[in-house]
Amino acid sequence: MNRLEKLRKELENHQVDALLITNPYNRRYMTGFTGTSGAAIVSKNDAVFITDFRYTEQAKKQVKNFRIIQQEASILKEVAKIVDEWKIKTLAFEKDHVTYGEYEAYQKQLNVELVPLSGLIEKIRLIKTDEEIKIIKVACEIADAAFSHILTFIKPGVTELEVSNELEFFMRKQGATSSSFDTIVASGLRSALPHGVATDKVIEKGDFVTLDFGAVYNGYVSDITRTIAVGQPSAKLVEMYNVVLEAQLLALEKIGPGMTGIEADKIARDFLTEKGYGEAFGHSTGHGIGLEVHEGPALSFRSEQVLEPNMVVTVEPGVYLPGIGGVRIEDDIVITGTGNERLTHSDKELIIL
Amino acid sequence: MNRLEKLRKELENHQVDALLITNPYNRRYMTGFTGTSGAAIVSKNDAVFITDFRYTEQAKKQVKNFRIIQQEASILKEVAKIVDEWKIKTLAFEKDHVTYGEYEAYQKQLNVELVPLSGLIEKIRLIKTDEEIKIIKVACEIADAAFSHILTFIKPGVTELEVSNELEFFMRKQGATSSSFDTIVASGLRSALPHGVATDKVIEKGDFVTLDFGAVYNGYVSDITRTIAVGQPSAKLVEMYNVVLEAQLLALEKIGPGMTGIEADKIARDFLTEKGYGEAFGHSTGHGIGLEVHEGPALSFRSEQVLEPNMVVTVEPGVYLPGIGGVRIEDDIVITGTGNERLTHSDKELIIL
Ligand SMILES: [Mn+2]
Ligand SMILES: [Mn+2]
Repeated sequence: MNRLEKLRKELENHQVDALLITNPYNRRYMTGFTGTSGAAIVSKNDAVFITDFRYTEQAKKQVKNFRIIQQEASILKEVAKIVDEWKIKTLAFEKDHVTYGEYEAYQKQLNVELVPLSGLIEKIRLIKTDEEIKIIKVACEIADAAFSHILTFIKPGVTELEVSNELEFFMRKQGATSSSFDTIVASGLRSALPHGVATDKVIEKGDFVTLDFGAVYNGYVSDITRTIAVGQPSAKLVEMYNVVLEAQLLALEKIGPGMTGIEADKIARDFLTEKGYGEAFGHSTGHGIGLEVHEGPALSFRSEQVLEPNMVVTVEPGVYLPGIGGVRIEDDIVITGTGNERLTHSDKELIIL
Repeated sequence: MNRLEKLRKELENHQVDALLITNPYNRRYMTGFTGTSGAAIVSKNDAVFITDFRYTEQAKKQVKNFRIIQQEASILKEVAKIVDEWKIKTLAFEKDHVTYGEYEAYQKQLNVELVPLSGLIEKIRLIKTDEEIKIIKVACEIADAAFSHILTFIKPGVTELEVSNELEFFMRKQGATSSSFDTIVASGLRSALPHGVATDKVIEKGDFVTLDFGAVYNGYVSDITRTIAVGQPSAKLVEMYNVVLEAQLLALEKIGPGMTGIEADKIARDFLTEKGYGEAFGHSTGHGIGLEVHEGPALSFRSEQVLEPNMVVTVEPGVYLPGIGGVRIEDDIVITGTGNERLTHSDKELIIL
């Protein structure tokens, strides 16, 4: 089934006549349109894409299987026309994206029963096509190359921000549109912060440095983390490093199809708990990546989603001890028929610069 | 009046007991918090800021005048407690930011009358403090420096994307966090696209190149456009350039306090219409900038907002002729007691590289 067919099956399941697609990721996924303004409507038999004069040329090139409408006034007025034309009785909208203010406007201007729904297209996005996986592989290659490069750049005296900028510059020169999120460069005691976005802190001898970054390539992202040492680290930090590495390798070895997110999360978590670091591992093991850097499926203690072939996820256990430091190691993998295939390949033995 | 006092006046005007602040720009504006997760509630007599364990240290440093609460479970559960504790009867929420899905959760979990409101804090943000203007000036200086720099980089054979990346790298090295939006580099026939985000097109001799970009500095943005020529341009392009330049200088000369957005927009528009380019000027003259790259007040044919001292806006007339090319010239200004002060200072005489 192609994407439109899958979506139509979802419309049937939810007993609605049509879906109004406004979330930019879902819009891109369904239509191929990469511009920043537009909406799509999909019903059982029809599919239109509405955009303004700035983007109609682009839409004609990118959008297949949808009739393209150039909006005269607002997008919403075109939606209203379609609702009447197609005799839509129940129109679903993306309730995790549409604001309450937009909903009010829908109520006022659309002669239809509005049905707030969640996750219809996100569910289809869970399973990547081979074409999507190819693109994600390139995003991963760019991140791997950036990691190799940054090892030649990091030394005592450079700031976290300089490292973050250098990663950005390098990845863009390799064809990335941008970083896939605000790059984390957390050095020294800051490495104990799971979300330590780069600051003007100077990297010093003896620091652990956690680098968490990724590239956007052709709309798809990568997400990789490595922790390295600048100068000889303390014995405690080395111990932490090795236990996280073991946990991550164990998870990579075991994660595969048929397992729930809870089961996938438990692998590294149980190991770290056994080693006395359960409390220090305060986040989940991983998350899906694709058009977004955080999408389904989650590898977390709450996720009953079963892993299936062609899902792409991160595997990123970490331990964080305030006042001492932290370690996280993250790879991207694609679930296969029998286990998983690694998409990021950067070295994981402790690197001491 | 400080920001909290101004907001409390708005609560009174709208006859609500409290406002739940979740829009990240408004949250930052009201609290000073620069992290990515948190919510604030402001009532007549109280003000709290709720965030999770990752951000409480940061919040303690940044957030003044608000009691800081570290959430135990979800933010919404803390909001529910506050609603009960403060005996709030009517709670306003930011309807242009809150999704319909979040609204449903509010309805389920909050024992209060919900009031969807729009633009309360945005209205306060219209008038910049001297401190904010100082920061915007730095963002403008970075953009000016980047324009000077890029003139040494552009030559026939480089691609638009290389130019865009070089602007990005240069501005970050000057202290910018990032570009303030996807940089527009529109060369040759592409210069007729008002929104021509950089592509892999190679810049050629005879091309007009429109560069529209800006820096984020300390949370605030700049936004500047210059059109330059690479090699001798055609007589028609030169004519277009001069008419846009005249229109822009005229607008800069006349825009000042007491004028509506409509009146400010009319200056360049009437001039261009008189010169036969009215149809070719398909967008509005300008928009406010601050924490966001598009905020109030608009300088457009629809905006009845009266300009006041310390508002910061762009002035950016342009003309676009499909099949020929386009020109736009944009500066940032702050409205003063008597007129305006320019914040961007890059050359505007036609530059031929
Ligand atoms: Mn991750
Ligand atoms: Mn602008």
